[in-house]
Amino acid sequence: MKISLNKKILDKNEECALQNSEFFADNNITCLNVISSPGSGKTTLLSRTIVDMADTTKIAVIEGDIRTDTDAKKIRKTGAVAIQIETKGSCHLSAQQVTGALASIPAAEMDLIFIENVGNLVCPSDFELGENLRVVVLSVPEGDDKPIKYPGTFAKADVILINKIDLIDHIDFNLERVIADIKAVNKEAKILQVSATTGTGMQDWYSWLSKNK
Amino acid sequence: MKISLNKKILDKNEECALQNSEFFADNNITCLNVISSPGSGKTTLLSRTIVDMADTTKIAVIEGDIRTDTDAKKIRKTGAVAIQIETKGSCHLSAQQVTGALASIPAAEMDLIFIENVGNLVCPSDFELGENLRVVVLSVPEGDDKPIKYPGTFAKADVILINKIDLIDHIDFNLERVIADIKAVNKEAKILQVSATTGTGMQDWYSWLSKNK
Repeated sequence: MKISLNKKILDKNEECALQNSEFFADNNITCLNVISSPGSGKTTLLSRTIVDMADTTKIAVIEGDIRTDTDAKKIRKTGAVAIQIETKGSCHLSAQQVTGALASIPAAEMDLIFIENVGNLVCPSDFELGENLRVVVLSVPEGDDKPIKYPGTFAKADVILINKIDLIDHIDFNLERVIADIKAVNKEAKILQVSATTGTGMQDWYSWLSKNK
Repeated sequence: MKISLNKKILDKNEECALQNSEFFADNNITCLNVISSPGSGKTTLLSRTIVDMADTTKIAVIEGDIRTDTDAKKIRKTGAVAIQIETKGSCHLSAQQVTGALASIPAAEMDLIFIENVGNLVCPSDFELGENLRVVVLSVPEGDDKPIKYPGTFAKADVILINKIDLIDHIDFNLERVIADIKAVNKEAKILQVSATTGTGMQDWYSWLSKNK
């Protein structure tokens, strides 16, 4: 009985993920599911991306958090459309929640839709939302052991952003080790070093986005 | 049917948590469940604590990680007993896993047992392990919005360590706001500012531990 219940829940998520995926294809939208620990700098990264790409790319953001709409408010300050999903305790976004969010914004007009998942390096990784691409953000202060400790999450990424690279001189962080550990579980992913605060490396990120949209 | 299954799973965890709790009481051990985001500095904090309190306090550590035994190895470098639980994908430790770990170390000889939970600011909060006290670690680089975004986790803490306080000059982090937001959900918890790397504030943490053991 336990197995059949789990199956049913998974199927509902998969069904909605497929529906979302078809919506993105029909409307020529690239959707990116952004996964990281709490505090890796996802919202700052997306805010800067929206502003810097504003001339060429229409971007909306779906924000996921346990509580508060602070991230959606931050994104809206850039002028972009943002909608907040409060998961009320759940540790990840579901595809159903994304379907609902897409229906309440002018999604079809967008070029890129970012889904900023709940800050959690474990659970969101197991739930497809219908996205085209998966982004994992690892910030320097989190430490250089995260790829070996959370290999499943890094293995599924299309691009991995090593953020807060401006703090590297203040922190014991072995960049070569991180890159080697990522490559051990994921040879395909693009790895970029960025600082969403200072702007370092952000052009590489925009180029990658432009190539993949 | 779904409700009864959930109930059964919870009961098994609760049953083992009670068993662990009785073991701690019978052996005059204080057990602390340490919860935080990935990379907040839990292992460094515990390593320093073990070394600095070595003259007065016997400490063992139960380490929880999705994969790897790197944290247990780090702890063992201090000379302390450490056992690693690899959760193989699960986002939190269960009381059952802790029961098993306690049986495989000389637990009864200890004064303090720290359980370093899986790096995750959401899920571990919902699973009692039989601990006496709950520690939440928030590191400065994670940002000052974490208490309002993860209120449930902060509400259940007995002590909250604001770690990596040495980085505060390099990061936009409003300490007063963090303290006010914590107090809004948890008036009782002790809040300490520390740096496990530089040693700042660690004496206050040791005093708190000594008072509460």
